[in-house]
Amino acid sequence: MTDPSWNLKAGERAARLARARAALGPRLAGKRVDAGAITELLHAVLAPGDRVCLEGNNQKQADFLAGALVQLDPQQVHDLHMVQSVLALPEHLDVFENGIARRLDFSFSGPQGARLAKLVSARQLEIGAIHTYLELFARYFVDLTPKVALVAAHAADAQGNLYTGPNTEDTPAIVEATAFSGGIVIAQVNEMVDGTTTALPRVDIPSDWVHFVVQAPRPNVIEPLFTRDPAQISEIQVLMAMMAIKGIYAEYEVQRLNHGIGFDTAAIELLLPTYGESLGLKGRIARHWALNPHPALIPAIEAGWVESIHSFGSELGMEDYIRARSDVFFTGADGSLRSNRAFCQAAGHYACDLFIGSTLQIDLDGNSSTATLGRIAGFGGAPNMGADARGRRHASAAWLKAGREARAGRSGAAGTPRGQKLVVQMVETFREHMQPAFVERLDAWTLQEQAGMDLPPIMIYGEDVTHILTEEGIANLLLCRSDEEREQAIRGVAGYTAVGLARDRRMVENLRDRGVIRRPQDLGIDPRQATRNLLAARSMRDLAQASGGLYQPPRRFRNW
Amino acid sequence: MTDPSWNLKAGERAARLARARAALGPRLAGKRVDAGAITELLHAVLAPGDRVCLEGNNQKQADFLAGALVQLDPQQVHDLHMVQSVLALPEHLDVFENGIARRLDFSFSGPQGARLAKLVSARQLEIGAIHTYLELFARYFVDLTPKVALVAAHAADAQGNLYTGPNTEDTPAIVEATAFSGGIVIAQVNEMVDGTTTALPRVDIPSDWVHFVVQAPRPNVIEPLFTRDPAQISEIQVLMAMMAIKGIYAEYEVQRLNHGIGFDTAAIELLLPTYGESLGLKGRIARHWALNPHPALIPAIEAGWVESIHSFGSELGMEDYIRARSDVFFTGADGSLRSNRAFCQAAGHYACDLFIGSTLQIDLDGNSSTATLGRIAGFGGAPNMGADARGRRHASAAWLKAGREARAGRSGAAGTPRGQKLVVQMVETFREHMQPAFVERLDAWTLQEQAGMDLPPIMIYGEDVTHILTEEGIANLLLCRSDEEREQAIRGVAGYTAVGLARDRRMVENLRDRGVIRRPQDLGIDPRQATRNLLAARSMRDLAQASGGLYQPPRRFRNW
Repeated sequence: MTDPSWNLKAGERAARLARARAALGPRLAGKRVDAGAITELLHAVLAPGDRVCLEGNNQKQADFLAGALVQLDPQQVHDLHMVQSVLALPEHLDVFENGIARRLDFSFSGPQGARLAKLVSARQLEIGAIHTYLELFARYFVDLTPKVALVAAHAADAQGNLYTGPNTEDTPAIVEATAFSGGIVIAQVNEMVDGTTTALPRVDIPSDWVHFVVQAPRPNVIEPLFTRDPAQISEIQVLMAMMAIKGIYAEYEVQRLNHGIGFDTAAIELLLPTYGESLGLKGRIARHWALNPHPALIPAIEAGWVESIHSFGSELGMEDYIRARSDVFFTGADGSLRSNRAFCQAAGHYACDLFIGSTLQIDLDGNSSTATLGRIAGFGGAPNMGADARGRRHASAAWLKAGREARAGRSGAAGTPRGQKLVVQMVETFREHMQPAFVERLDAWTLQEQAGMDLPPIMIYGEDVTHILTEEGIANLLLCRSDEEREQAIRGVAGYTAVGLARDRRMVENLRDRGVIRRPQDLGIDPRQATRNLLAARSMRDLAQASGGLYQPPRRFRNW
Repeated sequence: MTDPSWNLKAGERAARLARARAALGPRLAGKRVDAGAITELLHAVLAPGDRVCLEGNNQKQADFLAGALVQLDPQQVHDLHMVQSVLALPEHLDVFENGIARRLDFSFSGPQGARLAKLVSARQLEIGAIHTYLELFARYFVDLTPKVALVAAHAADAQGNLYTGPNTEDTPAIVEATAFSGGIVIAQVNEMVDGTTTALPRVDIPSDWVHFVVQAPRPNVIEPLFTRDPAQISEIQVLMAMMAIKGIYAEYEVQRLNHGIGFDTAAIELLLPTYGESLGLKGRIARHWALNPHPALIPAIEAGWVESIHSFGSELGMEDYIRARSDVFFTGADGSLRSNRAFCQAAGHYACDLFIGSTLQIDLDGNSSTATLGRIAGFGGAPNMGADARGRRHASAAWLKAGREARAGRSGAAGTPRGQKLVVQMVETFREHMQPAFVERLDAWTLQEQAGMDLPPIMIYGEDVTHILTEEGIANLLLCRSDEEREQAIRGVAGYTAVGLARDRRMVENLRDRGVIRRPQDLGIDPRQATRNLLAARSMRDLAQASGGLYQPPRRFRNW
């Protein structure tokens, strides 16, 4: 005796599926929809005010479905609430401009950040909130559950089973939340297989979680976001990477870690098999990784440094290399990568001892942000990986040592023994165009006022940062015992920026005596050794060679 | 040109699968293994030193496979490294006693805690670490990846697709980590369907992630851990629940939350549609939940308080009720619950504003622990949900208010505006047998010494606790500005325990004037109103009735 008013979602889903069948007629065969009927399908299954996840990953994009969404009639479909991790394509904002969508919850807007800010100012778009990835996925299961999910996969079979290929990324989290809450899942795919003469290489998403499959006219867009050309790594970056390896990785015996994107961390990856090897660190540091398949990691992998890598997504050109190194990467029976952003973010949060990344601005409290005026960019996964994971209970040498340093001499609750995650901000004191990385006041504060945010968009809070690394040295904030010490420790590595010049020289020297600040020479590093010759690969071609020809860089990176 | 030394895992898997085929002969048909051949299968696929996940969930147990593992020949299979979330069955420790396994990484040992401690003392078992659930799953993808996973599902088809039924729990996390890292997945099921005349109600795990399926002679064990008989709720618990609702939920407008197990929180659930309704709070608090399908929540659901529930696992007897209330629960197209411990723990960490739970001991710094001497119990998910989620970036009224209270008047990094999660410890001042809940020193410290742990096994750190709620009142630790204030705030709600009697009366009265401590009368609550009549259900029978007969309590809870 089921009271139907408690099963409205199931009833509504059935009604929408029936509408789709009626609207499409023979253009729907089983779950397969003709690409030419996509507009009718979306009109049939969408209703005003629906919460919609349009799969915008860091890399893979449901671009055909995005284009179709933009073409809908705003008289019929309007006020959608978009819940998606990344805004990467113009279409992701076009839907707001043309009145189809109104509200947005997201994680990262990268290249669309400036246009997003304009739409907010013009009141054409309301932001619910900016999240980290795992946080947004978590809300998919609580109060931001999609009614309709528009996702991308590599291939589908006649039943609707999906093969994502190496860029699984967000798809499992999106589809699970939608399919099990009375929602509708529509997948665009590059290929269809019939399931008899041709079969999927593997199943990433079971067919009964998927309602419609459409073969897109063109393969979905994927961005090679994690490729950094070693030719562009500077000698200052080599010096900083040496300090990271000797002054932090070795010091804390960091075995499990995550690297952000950027040339700074690419330099570390390229120094492991050279400088790291010379320090006898192989097997003692950097064995297990949570990160995308960075091409810059190839020399370290080849030299036997890396035992395992779990990935958020994949990286274009790395397919054959991954297949040939399946002991290191998570791969399916088909040999291709199985990534998973949700699990990799959990790994970054709970199973890594260190996060190292870069930022645009750091203030005197150690707060850092990539927010800049006139742009609403979001943070992706950095705050999740760059936060002390206070729910963690398993110990490691690195985590215990950081915790001891943070708590030495403290009393009360703050003195209770506890481990701490290493969170390193690695920046040159001046960025491009001689913009100082150290500032008295983050632009985030002004952005908060401009955009009416509840809090300033701080990427990593000073309370969570353990080390700031610049070309001038390493400031260990764990050892600071007052706001004043922390400020001087930061000034003490801020070089010739105004913040650095305003240091109290006596106090900085005192911090150096105590090991709170360490210069290259304090670490036994001779800056004259910091040359590009130390890089295990100095060009894209070197990387391709190091891979034995397995890594095939995208054309834009091929300069030989 | 794949160098085979980089694909050892794939080769080894193939070799083990071949060994299994050879050993089983006709007792293996496709992926289906005769139950009588389970010992041969395990001997064929397991090797000494393997990392093995034997699915021990909070509720569902792979008990047939556990029994088979115990029967293996320790000459052939030994030194296994078990990585599993819960130790629930005697077999989970038998494998250590008989020399098959040596090392253990886990989350919760509940009823096996005392025996576990003995095995550790006798050096028959080495503990790697004690984790929270999500943390252990995270390590499955980093450095604790299982080589062989022994899991439980409700049914399988001939291809090896798995239907978990409502207790999906840990299975997806375990299987994904194992299947995509060259490991082997063996599932025990209660039923086999042929896939043609009979089909799975839905697919929870795709067949190509599963290598062997065996139908167990008996359905797997499931524990109804989350059922609390309302008849056992005391009037003191009613009073405390009133304080929680009026003094915390209403005060902070808590919309998204997680409840631990216990009579204290069951009382809150049962007061929502009565006391909560009388305060006009319906729709203003407690709308979205991350928790198992607690029977005590039925009256609140029926009264329209609850918009959504996402669950770690399921609860026996709730199957028909869940099916009939699919707007509230996450369910599959078959109508039964889809739970998922990994996603629900992520939701508890990142998408909830409040965690409320109980503990055995609280010290003067607010640290709390359920660790008791002679037992190594672990914490399950409490530390993950009861920690400030510092990677969170989306705002809510509750989170902002807690953050403002914590930071008011602070400077430097600690003064930077930031939200905070509400973490409430709800305890009567005396537990069973007149054991005080408040102590000068946690037993955890002694246990650390006894068991040689790196850190004392603290469940929730004082730094993360925001409120302590007893029958004497609520201590708001967010408002404390020194170790001394915190200590007196705790003493001030510790009643007639030695800790409570040693309070500084003047300081406690001062804290009360400032609203740091609030008594029932300060909240406008008359303790005389705190009667069992306020409970929306006062017995198991009431719960069953409130569900319209849909909830069918397990026999042990049927007392009418």
